[in-house]
Amino acid sequence: MVRVTVWNEYRHEREDDNVAELYPEGIHAALADALEERGHDVRTATLDEDDEHGLSRDVLDDTDVLLWWGHLAHDEVSDEVVDRVVERVRDGMGFLPLHSAHYSKPFKRLMGTSCSLKWREAGERERLWTVEPGHPIAEGIDEQIVVPEAEMYGERFDIPQPDALVFVSWFEGGEVFRSGCCYRRGSGRIFYFRPGHEEYPIYDQEEIITVIDNAIEWASPTDGVEPNFSSVEAAEPIGEE
Amino acid sequence: MVRVTVWNEYRHEREDDNVAELYPEGIHAALADALEERGHDVRTATLDEDDEHGLSRDVLDDTDVLLWWGHLAHDEVSDEVVDRVVERVRDGMGFLPLHSAHYSKPFKRLMGTSCSLKWREAGERERLWTVEPGHPIAEGIDEQIVVPEAEMYGERFDIPQPDALVFVSWFEGGEVFRSGCCYRRGSGRIFYFRPGHEEYPIYDQEEIITVIDNAIEWASPTDGVEPNFSSVEAAEPIGEE
Amino acid sequence: MVRVTVWNEYRHEREDDNVAELYPEGIHAALADALEERGHDVRTATLDEDDEHGLSRDVLDDTDVLLWWGHLAHDEVSDEVVDRVVERVRDGMGFLPLHSAHYSKPFKRLMGTSCSLKWREAGERERLWTVEPGHPIAEGIDEQIVVPEAEMYGERFDIPQPDALVFVSWFEGGEVFRSGCCYRRGSGRIFYFRPGHEEYPIYDQEEIITVIDNAIEWASPTDGVEPNFSSVEAAEPIGEE
Amino acid sequence: MVRVTVWNEYRHEREDDNVAELYPEGIHAALADALEERGHDVRTATLDEDDEHGLSRDVLDDTDVLLWWGHLAHDEVSDEVVDRVVERVRDGMGFLPLHSAHYSKPFKRLMGTSCSLKWREAGERERLWTVEPGHPIAEGIDEQIVVPEAEMYGERFDIPQPDALVFVSWFEGGEVFRSGCCYRRGSGRIFYFRPGHEEYPIYDQEEIITVIDNAIEWASPTDGVEPNFSSVEAAEPIGEE
Repeated sequence: MVRVTVWNEYRHEREDDNVAELYPEGIHAALADALEERGHDVRTATLDEDDEHGLSRDVLDDTDVLLWWGHLAHDEVSDEVVDRVVERVRDGMGFLPLHSAHYSKPFKRLMGTSCSLKWREAGERERLWTVEPGHPIAEGIDEQIVVPEAEMYGERFDIPQPDALVFVSWFEGGEVFRSGCCYRRGSGRIFYFRPGHEEYPIYDQEEIITVIDNAIEWASPTDGVEPNFSSVEAAEPIGEE
Repeated sequence: MVRVTVWNEYRHEREDDNVAELYPEGIHAALADALEERGHDVRTATLDEDDEHGLSRDVLDDTDVLLWWGHLAHDEVSDEVVDRVVERVRDGMGFLPLHSAHYSKPFKRLMGTSCSLKWREAGERERLWTVEPGHPIAEGIDEQIVVPEAEMYGERFDIPQPDALVFVSWFEGGEVFRSGCCYRRGSGRIFYFRPGHEEYPIYDQEEIITVIDNAIEWASPTDGVEPNFSSVEAAEPIGEE
Repeated sequence: MVRVTVWNEYRHEREDDNVAELYPEGIHAALADALEERGHDVRTATLDEDDEHGLSRDVLDDTDVLLWWGHLAHDEVSDEVVDRVVERVRDGMGFLPLHSAHYSKPFKRLMGTSCSLKWREAGERERLWTVEPGHPIAEGIDEQIVVPEAEMYGERFDIPQPDALVFVSWFEGGEVFRSGCCYRRGSGRIFYFRPGHEEYPIYDQEEIITVIDNAIEWASPTDGVEPNFSSVEAAEPIGEE
Repeated sequence: MVRVTVWNEYRHEREDDNVAELYPEGIHAALADALEERGHDVRTATLDEDDEHGLSRDVLDDTDVLLWWGHLAHDEVSDEVVDRVVERVRDGMGFLPLHSAHYSKPFKRLMGTSCSLKWREAGERERLWTVEPGHPIAEGIDEQIVVPEAEMYGERFDIPQPDALVFVSWFEGGEVFRSGCCYRRGSGRIFYFRPGHEEYPIYDQEEIITVIDNAIEWASPTDGVEPNFSSVEAAEPIGEE
């Protein structure tokens, strides 16, 4: 059973009636419910719940995979908490930034790039094509996922080349986007997944939850050796000809 | 000055009036003219010109970068010539399979996969988005290239993950495609570039020629060491504790 | 329970007394025993057991992950069986070429390169360093595996750049080698793992078996969609401005 | 002619007589001389020369490729200058961190990882093996470069998987290291190159300068489109069925 923490900014849902109608308990609660049904051990954390945004050292130490949803208030996330998240990823914790979390502090720190993109809010159709059907994150997914109404994100998406590119999106208005991107950083695995705009019931789509479920399994830490970053003695003789 | 050989199957142009009108001297001649204007030293070769398809050992030894256009008659290319092409790529010759050459024997041999895809001939609009604007193959290219009428190629495209993915296509009918893919195999560089259906004047588009021109520069051989694949003596002492 | 088939050329063990002493029932039997202890469902197949080398269509259809050990007689493997193996890998079967199987027909076909290298038989010490401790194939493995006596394989190893590089070897005589290399081809996963020379009891080393065990888990097929490689109708309207 | 800026911390040379003897004018001056001979347009900049460490906005705007050598005083580099360097790399400037610059602020920021490693100062022999002889950075380089006396750097090196791995080092004392690593970040190219310890005359070795010279050519900016990171209108009709 993977220990999942769903982190959410949780502002749109409290400030905008349309969003509140879709996600009355918040996006984090909707995701937590769906992922518990899939058999994960899920907790949630939100920006305003305490001065550590619900992400104390204990919570993070107890987390195998961290989901992150944020949009309006990336800057309000304290650098201390960001350091802690980044550190845990390097130590092996999985990290799943969703949708507008492309612009979150931890994702930008882990990528080393601006993570910028172009966008449009027009409620257009999105088709996520499965580029790597043999990848574990695509298990049980058809050749495409159709999202009836979506905010558009378009290339150039300023990210490092993914270690694996699993999904590529087509948008009605003419753009494409690398929507499912795998990375390893330190001993941790990262999967950026694009869908999830707050104004559409995207996390009610079964296939979207399946992808996130698969990604959680894929990103779960494995028990690798902790690297030795220090000065070491030679195991072999030096100075012989 | 890069020594370029443009290889063409040269069947459509001789069998189909519409294609003949677009490319009266053949696709190879159109490409050769355009690339000579860009300053390359260009020769052509075609399937039926002799029993080596114009690709004698001398021609290949004298070629820095080989372009390949084929569609109807992949199977008629002799395995001996394919072996020779593959060998030269491994030794450092650049290789640019264009459009339907995704299914050519040398490309499939070099990739190790089926190189299959889905397709549609409907004269639809294609938008090639520049995913890596900093890549040398994208030099001078805008954020997208619009091809007014194109045959569609759609994902899943069964290729190994590219070393670099430079262009991704959007199609009017709803599909996406990895249209500009870089590989290194042996000491040679390979760039698959999707545009070029025989029924549309795609090689008359300036940007398409610019991409091919850039790819020729990128794929030109560099003077690396020839690998030593043999049994070797130890340079360091063995058997000491 | 993963269905594993261990394929072995099984010639050295029958022709050379020293090898026979190490692996009296053959390398395949030693591997099968060790992997059954790890909980896999293992069968074996060998070059000379029938005219399909023990790899009938039924056997392959019933195999999740295929291990391959060969050295003296790569050329005796029939092209029909090679086609079948390659086809199954593209359909999702895992494939683990071991040691001298770098030069086996299926591996060369799937890589598209010569897979050549330099070598030396001097019974020297090898240190396999864990370059990616967070990779699932490195689970439970220390920062290095020491093989007391090994045949040397040295770079340049003519392979495509791996999707992930998990182990790099150091040799007493002065060479390095990319010893643990991950690839996806079609829907299948491939892991080349260097250790396993027939003259040393390398498959008796616990860590070596752990790596193979991990690689079997990693390479097991997932239930992805079968790609549609055909002409398709447009899902979106074409021809509107 | 590529406009190169060689940045150096320039402390060891002023504080340690042995280093001063090797590099009386500083490592930056030695590199600048060698690279000017190769035809580049070279300037230098050092940590203590002004409050911008010689890296004003004007200097960086005028730089195609920035070399970076630092060791003792990474923390003294101001964050403002680091921001500026990172920004310029994303805009296309090439960046070549050398040796102990693995731990410099700009490299760590661009990688998103700790960039830690293990090390030993024992004056041991290093062999840099050319893993990708066909890569432009390996042009003119033999199958190995032998450095007679070197500080050891060993794996695990905590970096993202390189886009291309060109050199791998062997050390007398038993370790290996990924010594030549290519990345693209934003529109810029980065090449980390390991050799260059201040206590040995490594930058007097012709092959080492050849690699740096090649890397400068490879990392020079190309004239790609500046990405549009903004809200955009749809080019295609939205809302039709």
